[in-house]
Order: sequence, then structure tokens, then C-alpha cells
Amino acid sequence: MIPQKQIPTKAFVVKSPKSPFVLQDVVLDEVRDNEVLVEMKYTGLCHTDIVVQNGAIPVGDYPAVLGHEGAGIVRRIGSGVQDKSLSEGDRVFLSFTTCRNCTPCREGRHGFCSRFTEINFGGVRGISAADSPISSTDGKAIRGQFFGQSSMSKLAIVPETSIVKSPVASGVTDADMAPLAPLGCGYLTGAGTVLNVLKPKPASRFAVLGMGAVGLAALMAARAQGVETIIAVDIVDAKLELAASLGASHTLNTKKVSDLAQGLHGLFPDGVDHILDTTGVVPLLQSSIKALGHEGTLAIVGVAPSGASLNIDPLEFMINCKRVVGAIEGSSNPATLLPQLIAWYKEGKFPVDRLAKVYDAENLEQALEDLHSGKVIKPVLKWADL
Amino acid sequence: MIPQKQIPTKAFVVKSPKSPFVLQDVVLDEVRDNEVLVEMKYTGLCHTDIVVQNGAIPVGDYPAVLGHEGAGIVRRIGSGVQDKSLSEGDRVFLSFTTCRNCTPCREGRHGFCSRFTEINFGGVRGISAADSPISSTDGKAIRGQFFGQSSMSKLAIVPETSIVKSPVASGVTDADMAPLAPLGCGYLTGAGTVLNVLKPKPASRFAVLGMGAVGLAALMAARAQGVETIIAVDIVDAKLELAASLGASHTLNTKKVSDLAQGLHGLFPDGVDHILDTTGVVPLLQSSIKALGHEGTLAIVGVAPSGASLNIDPLEFMINCKRVVGAIEGSSNPATLLPQLIAWYKEGKFPVDRLAKVYDAENLEQALEDLHSGKVIKPVLKWADL
Repeated sequence: MIPQKQIPTKAFVVKSPKSPFVLQDVVLDEVRDNEVLVEMKYTGLCHTDIVVQNGAIPVGDYPAVLGHEGAGIVRRIGSGVQDKSLSEGDRVFLSFTTCRNCTPCREGRHGFCSRFTEINFGGVRGISAADSPISSTDGKAIRGQFFGQSSMSKLAIVPETSIVKSPVASGVTDADMAPLAPLGCGYLTGAGTVLNVLKPKPASRFAVLGMGAVGLAALMAARAQGVETIIAVDIVDAKLELAASLGASHTLNTKKVSDLAQGLHGLFPDGVDHILDTTGVVPLLQSSIKALGHEGTLAIVGVAPSGASLNIDPLEFMINCKRVVGAIEGSSNPATLLPQLIAWYKEGKFPVDRLAKVYDAENLEQALEDLHSGKVIKPVLKWADL
Repeated sequence: MIPQKQIPTKAFVVKSPKSPFVLQDVVLDEVRDNEVLVEMKYTGLCHTDIVVQNGAIPVGDYPAVLGHEGAGIVRRIGSGVQDKSLSEGDRVFLSFTTCRNCTPCREGRHGFCSRFTEINFGGVRGISAADSPISSTDGKAIRGQFFGQSSMSKLAIVPETSIVKSPVASGVTDADMAPLAPLGCGYLTGAGTVLNVLKPKPASRFAVLGMGAVGLAALMAARAQGVETIIAVDIVDAKLELAASLGASHTLNTKKVSDLAQGLHGLFPDGVDHILDTTGVVPLLQSSIKALGHEGTLAIVGVAPSGASLNIDPLEFMINCKRVVGAIEGSSNPATLLPQLIAWYKEGKFPVDRLAKVYDAENLEQALEDLHSGKVIKPVLKWADL
């Protein structure tokens, strides 16, 4: 039984940029009209949590509870929640939040919400004592609702905009919840950029840079769409082997070539049709533009360093009808894309179970270490039952 | 009566890069199976003719007959021409040529033909004595079929791929031929980039840089599509007044602001949705990227200097979901777009007659002078009857 006004729980708090994640007792505020209390079962870890924690992107207020991928159970529903089919006990997946008012939102391109950065990094509620959804046990406000979630917490107060109900017909089991927990950000970003932004055709030559969770999700989505020529690019042979086993037709270790364009031109002298970059590594981005063939598109998905510069030759760009596109969250609507990815997973076309490794929440340090060392593609934290 | 194997005519010949256009007697080869002999009535002059003539883009072999916009009458039809409805005496408009085999061509994006530069600038036939469609009176080969046309000639041997028959139902009269002669390149480029590449919506904020023929065609096409906010940008007030009278909702003289982005942000603090650049001026392109709002797209249509560099901040580009797109000939299929533009013209929605001024072909020098001085937007040469 959770009391109405003061909901005690445990969460990983980051005190200030560069401070570690510390698991500690916190208190949640009451659930407001448009919010849902979710008991987290599994939380996916994503690089964006880490770059906000380690100060590379020190956005928003601190202290903060981060975490923006999660799978859990509905425990309480605000009176103004619009989805009247939502019930306590339902399995839900968490995704980013959006304003629902701007043109991209109204047109179903929620990932391109014009207020995306503000409301996802800043939190939907503010951090003032009156507004914050999370407090320390001594009453100090903590930023919550990071990407609408702050899912690095046993319990979370989540606006309805971040809730995707597990599709009843999909047959998702308790065992599926761990591998599917990261759906709402990394996998959705990779798959959405393929399905909504680049839209490769079966005959397209499609290169993916970086075989992390986003890149491998892109690869699996392209494969599920019937794309035959998928070039997986990384600097770690083990990741390239995994990529090949997931459907890459070609692999390229950029440590073994002088640069990306030279490597890709070695495979395809006319260039490639699509390049999806998940790395944010500027020399790779620069070389990508050279590696594009006629009418080729580069999608910038990875987080490049602030203030970096990419050079485009406008005449060459025009003559070859090239394109560069910046894309957030694959321009996806989680309410429609997550059910599709779940269906693909159940059909064996989107085997994200092969990327995930589950750690008890207490073992976060080990999970982060394994992520950094490349031992695991997608660490998933498991929360003990209440 | 035109003899079968040696067809005498007059054409403007450019002897070598930077040589002037010289009207002289030439001899055309016979019409091959897939070709049509066209008697030119009107030829539009386009900046691309001039940059090839004056050596700024000295591509292909010389001597050459340039010209790549034209309206005329079919005088002879090769036996292999596939459009069996084409008859001698038909009115036709000339446009660029394409390979019809590459993916863009097969998918109707002919302007993005992967062999575009090669076959349009180089000529469909080669320049060897055995292959060239044009010779001097003393038998020396001259490059022809520039953009499938070499329309700066009283008669031209044109591959069927460059022929668009005047739609019978459109009611095009002899008087319409002069204003419509430039349809096949400049107007098609401006309108096609709007209709096929940028696709602004009625509520979009759409800026066009450069109020020449391409820019004004883009403006008219956007207006015909119901776009309400169209910002015309130039450095000549008279051109901006013309733009306003053709439907621009806002005008911006960049000589009167510190830079384009500052000027556009003054009008629209959130930035604009689409920018179509026809100028190729690098500082304007650079400032355009800054002026784009969230999810904004810059289309590079103008010819920038060779080797120029445009800087993109990949993180800013990703966060704001921006796009840069290179586009040739508006990614258009002339066979479908020209009839649409002709229909718009007849309905008064695409009043290109307001841009054109007709000069007797002998007065080319005057036409070029008026184009350079900004006195005329689109000079059209009129050819005397045979």
C-alpha cells in the first residue's frame, strides 16, 4: 500500500554534473491528473544518461534522477488520463515525452517535437519544491521526469505522454519485459530513423556507423524491411561479428582502412545510398559525405561534440543531389512504433534479446563498466519487487 | 524542303571557353532513329548557358552550340521515336535529357538522373566527326545536344527524351510560345524544387533567395500551392517589388540587414521552415543554415563556386532536426511537370509572361546586357521563320 501524498522509493540520484549515480531513498509527490505511477521492473541504460551524468552534456537542473528507458507496471492512474483503457496492473513501456501541440507532434513525427530538448532534458515538471515530482528524504527538490520518466527509480511519476501500453494482442510475457525495456529510446531511435527518415528500399546500399544499441536496432529494422545490402561499420571486430549474425551483408572495421570513404568505396565504387551515423565522431561524419553516392543521404543521429564543424561543398552537394538530415528519436511516434517493434520481436525479426544483459539494480557500476568496455551492448537494470 | 543528310541552319557557336556567342552558318547531321528535328521558334537564355560560355564552368568539348530552353515545331521524326502520337507540325517544348535507366529516372525523379551532368553538359551524341549532330560549313565537328537540345540554333536535332509535346487540351497559342519557351529548365527547376523536394504546406514559412527566373518560378509555384508566408530575398528593390506583385508576403533586401539570418529572424524569431537558394552565394548559404527553424530545410539549387565550403555544426543540426538538400532541375519529370505548369499559366497562376522579354535572335548581345544589368529577368530569343 503506497500512501497518497508521500510515496517512498529508491532511485539513482546524480547530485551534480560528474557526480556518480547514487542509489538512495527518495520521496515521490502525489500523482497529478495527467500522470501515472509506474513500478519499474526493468530500466535500460543509454549513453544519453551517461553524458548528462558525466557532464559532457550538463543540461537541466541538479540533483536529478535520470533514466529514460523502462518497462513496468501501472500502480496508480491520474484522474485526467485520457486513455480510459489503462488499468492498474497493466504492463507499460516508457518513452520520451512530447508537447503534442507543435506541427511535428500533430503530424505524428513526435521525435521531431519542437520542444523536445526543453521538456525531455529539463523534465516535464520543474524542479521547484512545489513542482518537482521527486524529493530527498529531507525535503529537497530533485529533477524528475527526465524524458518524462526518470526511470532509474523503483517507482516513477510519469506523464501519460510517456506511457505506451503493452499491446494486448502481442502476447508479451514477463520474460519479454527485460529485453524490451530499452525500446523507448535507443531501439526506437535506430528503427525509427530507418522507417521514418531514411526509408531505404530493398535495393538500397545502407551503411550504419557504430554497432551500439541504436546502430544494431537500425540494422535489424532495415533487415526486417527487406534491405539486402547493409554495411555494418565499427572499430571492434566482435561487434561486427554480432552485426553480421543479425543480418549485415558487409562489415567494415574503420581501423583497417585509411578512412571510411575509402573503405566504403572499396566495397561500392559508386558510393552508398544511406548512411546512418550513431557515433557523432566528426571525421567519420566528414568522410560519410564523401562516401555517399548520387542522391545519397547522411542521417546525423549520434551526439557530436558541441561546436564541431562539418564541411560541405555546396556545388558537389548540388550536382550529386546529396542530403544531410539531423534526426532525433527517429522522428517516431512511440504509440505506433513501439507496438510494431514488439510485434517484430515476437516474430523473431527484431531480436533485441541478443543485445541485452540484465543486472540487478544494485550492480549499476558493473553494468556501466561492461558498457564502457564493450562487453555488453545494452545493460538492463532489474528492480527487486516492492 | 530540308535535305536529308545535310541540313543547313544558323546557330550561336562558342568556339572555346570565354569566346563569345557567334551566330554562324552550320550544318546538321541526319536525324537518327530516336531523334526529332525541331524548328526553334523561341529560345530561353539561362545563366547555365552563360557560365559554360564564359568559362566559369568550362565543361565538355568545344566548339559548342549551347542553349537548353526552347519552344518550337516538329519538322522531322526519327523512325524509332516511341511517342507515335508525335506528328510533324506539333508544337513542342524542350527540356533536359536523362538516361531513363537509373533509379531516379525509373522512379520519376528525372532531374536527379545519376548520369545528369555527363549527358546534359557533354551532349547525348559525342563530338567526333562521325557522331556530332552539328558541323561547321567546312566540316568540323561542333558539340550539340547540350541538355539534349543546343537550342541556340534555328534548327536542332533533339533526342526524344528532351521533347515535351504541348498538351492538346491546354489551348497553348502561338502567342504563348514565347513566354513558355523557358519552361524546360529555369522555371521547372524553381517550381519542381517546391513541388517535389521541399513540399511546403500552406502554413509553412518559405524563403526564396534570388529573384531571378528560378526564384520567381519557385515563388509562383509556392503561391499556386497555397503557401501563405513567402519571403522573397534579393539585393535589388525592383526585383523585390516584382516578387511582391507575384505573391511574396514579405520581402527582404539583404543589403539592408547585417546578414540573412538576422533579417529573417527579425521577421520570424523562430526561424523559417524552408529556404530555397538560387544564388550559390556562400555567405548566404551559410547564413541560411542559421536562419532555419526547427525541422527546417535548405535546398541548394544555385551554382556555388567550385571548392567552396559550407560549415555545419552536427550537434546543432541534430538537435534541431535540420536538413540540407542538393537539388537539380527540381527532381522533376518534364513530361508531367511541364503540362502542369502550362495549365497553371493558362489559369493565370503561373504568370511567366511577366518575367520574359523577347529579342530577335540577332540581338543576343542586347539580351545578355539586359540580363546582366537586371533590366530583364528572362530574355527569350525569337527566331525568324525559315
